[in-house]
Amino acid sequence: MSDDAIPAVLPLRNDLVGETPYGAPQLDVPVCLNVNENPYAPSDAVADSIARRVRDIATMLNRYPDREHIELRKAFARYLAGESGVSLPFEQLWGANGSNEIMLQLFQAFGGPGRTALGCDPTYSMYPEYARDTFTTWRVVHRRDDFTLDVNATVDAIIRTRPSLVVITSPNNPTGTPLPMDQLAILLDACRKAGVEGAAEGTHPVLVVDEAYIEFRDPGTPSALTMLAGHENLAVSRTMSKAFAFAGARVGYLAASRGIIDAVRIVRMPYHLSALTQAAALAALEHTDELLAQVDHLRRTRGETAHWLATRRYHGRPLRVAESQSNFLLFGGGFEDRERIFDELLKRGVLIRVVGPEGWLRVCMGTDEEMSRFRAALDEVLAIV
Amino acid sequence: MSDDAIPAVLPLRNDLVGETPYGAPQLDVPVCLNVNENPYAPSDAVADSIARRVRDIATMLNRYPDREHIELRKAFARYLAGESGVSLPFEQLWGANGSNEIMLQLFQAFGGPGRTALGCDPTYSMYPEYARDTFTTWRVVHRRDDFTLDVNATVDAIIRTRPSLVVITSPNNPTGTPLPMDQLAILLDACRKAGVEGAAEGTHPVLVVDEAYIEFRDPGTPSALTMLAGHENLAVSRTMSKAFAFAGARVGYLAASRGIIDAVRIVRMPYHLSALTQAAALAALEHTDELLAQVDHLRRTRGETAHWLATRRYHGRPLRVAESQSNFLLFGGGFEDRERIFDELLKRGVLIRVVGPEGWLRVCMGTDEEMSRFRAALDEVLAIV
Repeated sequence: MSDDAIPAVLPLRNDLVGETPYGAPQLDVPVCLNVNENPYAPSDAVADSIARRVRDIATMLNRYPDREHIELRKAFARYLAGESGVSLPFEQLWGANGSNEIMLQLFQAFGGPGRTALGCDPTYSMYPEYARDTFTTWRVVHRRDDFTLDVNATVDAIIRTRPSLVVITSPNNPTGTPLPMDQLAILLDACRKAGVEGAAEGTHPVLVVDEAYIEFRDPGTPSALTMLAGHENLAVSRTMSKAFAFAGARVGYLAASRGIIDAVRIVRMPYHLSALTQAAALAALEHTDELLAQVDHLRRTRGETAHWLATRRYHGRPLRVAESQSNFLLFGGGFEDRERIFDELLKRGVLIRVVGPEGWLRVCMGTDEEMSRFRAALDEVLAIV
Repeated sequence: MSDDAIPAVLPLRNDLVGETPYGAPQLDVPVCLNVNENPYAPSDAVADSIARRVRDIATMLNRYPDREHIELRKAFARYLAGESGVSLPFEQLWGANGSNEIMLQLFQAFGGPGRTALGCDPTYSMYPEYARDTFTTWRVVHRRDDFTLDVNATVDAIIRTRPSLVVITSPNNPTGTPLPMDQLAILLDACRKAGVEGAAEGTHPVLVVDEAYIEFRDPGTPSALTMLAGHENLAVSRTMSKAFAFAGARVGYLAASRGIIDAVRIVRMPYHLSALTQAAALAALEHTDELLAQVDHLRRTRGETAHWLATRRYHGRPLRVAESQSNFLLFGGGFEDRERIFDELLKRGVLIRVVGPEGWLRVCMGTDEEMSRFRAALDEVLAIV
């Protein structure tokens, strides 16, 4: 698209002048391992269910969709009860067009001028954009060298900064780092003690755990959903993009207290979730077992790829691989010119992502065939850089 | 849903305290004439096309959608060339989840703290919400008693208020009033002379014409699209919800200068438009002729209903009917207790809308059968109130 600056005659927001649209390049490359998609396409059975559900509602598309999308919220509740063992009434669930929109709605409800949102860097690069779009100040606490949370520093920042939102990603993107429940408990405790700058006395920060990749965690690891009971200020964001192989359908959802859901309902666009989206998501959720079966395989691929990467050498030293419970791996840790490695891989038909701290690159798990091409290409590239 | 207040422990934005979610009641009533939907459902042929297009992309839903939705933007361009005789390159078009999202994106790009958006009251009740959600001040100029624009007062307000956005709805909702092109030219001229409070020197207000209902205008009436050439600060918002009978699919779009589109691209959520939405919209646009054939019929229904309403009497005086070029009519003008008339109609299975200035009610055009029930019910009600 146009890379021209916005014409000076237009009153673009002052803080947007010089900004460019967010997003990874959408390139036509044989092996795309750059945006953490699930490489396994929905099967014909899933696709048939989606088309059937869409056909069923297509002759009613002249009518607005169910603004409260209650059938879908009940389906989310059933799914989470099975996936995480946490039973929630539908009033504690909420869907939107991708977890992007979930996060934006949370920032719209609880952020704003004079308020601060706090994250733990390195983390997902959209958070500063949600903050920017809602005039919320974005602050970060740095993670430790191994990308785990610096819990003490984060607690100090919560008490000192008095944010209205604390955003923790688990597993973290782009590092893959999980959030242990004992750390979450400490952060929730800090939020219970902290006030909120720019809000009334007696309010506390809302703690958002972004679990976009949670289904890829090691079996037995609890989700933040298990902490919802008793924590009115905890919000857990989820998405069907990754584990459900549903990135194209844009379905994110939120599990939280009724109070948080009701707050989001104030700022949501009316009829934000189309009847098409509701129908397609219901169809995909009918195939939960089949879609999640691929998750097991991708988890094994992650383990094998992490192990293989750790055996590769760059300038005589083994590559570092961040511990990941997600469907991607951050690797390298000492690349002197990561852009060049990215470019050389791209020349070989393999698209990964330049993201995270200097010296690192991120690759997401593809099919067995794609990973084989990635490994071959990386070996070639490491031999020449 | 819950009508409870948001718990005091949550740091809801101060300006949202006490607010409730926007939206007309979604009631299960035989005759729904309340939210300006098209009463003619998509045919089986249209529904089959939608299901086929969705099935075609369903096995690729593991991938993110085309963030730039270029095929759809080209289809919008073809449609507008036919509908309004205005040829635009796809770079001057942009789609979103309903024109709600189009408008929100415009407010996100050009509004914000310290800035003002100006509208002409009575008008669409969502505009103050877009302003609220983006911390933009919302100001109104009053329309004349016949709901036409008070052009001089609007020009004065543009010069004096220095808004970053001027929003004119044509045909206006809830009144149905069209915006003549000579009036638009005067407003564009005023914008060219006006500065913008809170923006750099040399910028001018963006003038947004919301043409959600434009397809229902009388034949031969020009669209604001005809004024796009040479006006870098003009934006025309459209929707497939009404004429295309596609409210459930949530497809709005914007025609504007490339600069305005590029500004919106900065603030849009990445991948905001799902592959499902893009596929379904492309399918519906293939059936343009069939879907728009109903528009002619609804336009005739509007004329007949306006004539019929003007023959009815309330407390001895004929009902007033606002001149409408839309698929709805604002009528009454002197109802002493419009809530009671609404309730009595609802008891008779007819749902209309209490909206607009005191003393008026709005009814949207239904099928012949629905209009017949509306007329019978209104006659009963007028006899007892």
